[in-house]
Amino acid sequence: MSRWEPDARGRLERAAMDLYSERGFERTTVTEIARRAGLTERTFFRHFADKREVLFAGSSTLQDLFVDTLAGVPESAAPIDAVAAALDAAAAVFQDRHAYARQRQMIIAANAELQERELIKLARLSTALAGTLRRRGVPDPAASLAAEAGIAVFKVTFERWIAGTGRPDMPQLIRESLDALKAVTAGR
Amino acid sequence: MSRWEPDARGRLERAAMDLYSERGFERTTVTEIARRAGLTERTFFRHFADKREVLFAGSSTLQDLFVDTLAGVPESAAPIDAVAAALDAAAAVFQDRHAYARQRQMIIAANAELQERELIKLARLSTALAGTLRRRGVPDPAASLAAEAGIAVFKVTFERWIAGTGRPDMPQLIRESLDALKAVTAGR
Repeated sequence: MSRWEPDARGRLERAAMDLYSERGFERTTVTEIARRAGLTERTFFRHFADKREVLFAGSSTLQDLFVDTLAGVPESAAPIDAVAAALDAAAAVFQDRHAYARQRQMIIAANAELQERELIKLARLSTALAGTLRRRGVPDPAASLAAEAGIAVFKVTFERWIAGTGRPDMPQLIRESLDALKAVTAGR
Repeated sequence: MSRWEPDARGRLERAAMDLYSERGFERTTVTEIARRAGLTERTFFRHFADKREVLFAGSSTLQDLFVDTLAGVPESAAPIDAVAAALDAAAAVFQDRHAYARQRQMIIAANAELQERELIKLARLSTALAGTLRRRGVPDPAASLAAEAGIAVFKVTFERWIAGTGRPDMPQLIRESLDALKAVTAGR
């Protein structure tokens, strides 16, 4: 017998995030997540491969957003402006999820394995951006460096945005960080 | 009974690197490393905490070199020039170790856990550089961005240097990558 489980994925995600925040990622089991969500373990595994995936299921969506936006910028744009457009698109998506992003960041900061996973996610993002720039005809090392610069701006901005109170304007912070990077590399 | 073991550390390192290259990091045991070096496991553990440390024992030396060089640059220097001085110092050290660096990179590329470790090493390096810049009075986000830019240049250059044949000039490649980053962020 199967029954209809409205927003099962969302309920599982919220239950998992709350439990990770309350008792830590390591000390939370899938059984507990399912129980808190009022669902079964079987339902959990229909939505997530394991408890870590609850935190990283958005990674491929983020990567697709970066790559698709970058690929869609007119080829006449300078590589850094194409990368900036991708960062803007990501910032617009994050903007509505400040509370979630902050909760997630605190869970990750408390666990070494999750921090490693986050670094891998960013490294993959950089590789994907560099590959897209190369397909747009940007030679190396410019393609790799523009991608790394973009991820550096994203990483530094994300930390500032997370640390901010109220609802800091991520697109605005992205522009500020990009300008700061330009000033820094210009030797100012 | 203790006996004198000339260059035990170097012999263990070479034996470990050769075994990791021949049969992979995962399939190599400390027993085999010690045997290949003609030494005991006990001697191995006097020099290295575990078999992974053979590959990462140089990380703290590299970090000290970066931080000490950066801290020693006159405060009048622009942050990016201070970071460039640190990269130059590192490049000079790497220059004599091309064969070793290449062998190490191939071992790391073949193992996901080692790749994660390498990413963590670079992230720590960036954090250390940013902290040193802040102590020199560079405000954020410029300090974090200059550090991230430096690590990006290092990472991209290192890959080009490793891929090169003969004995590519790493200090020269560092300057080229830094110029390429400056051109990229200037929108060229």
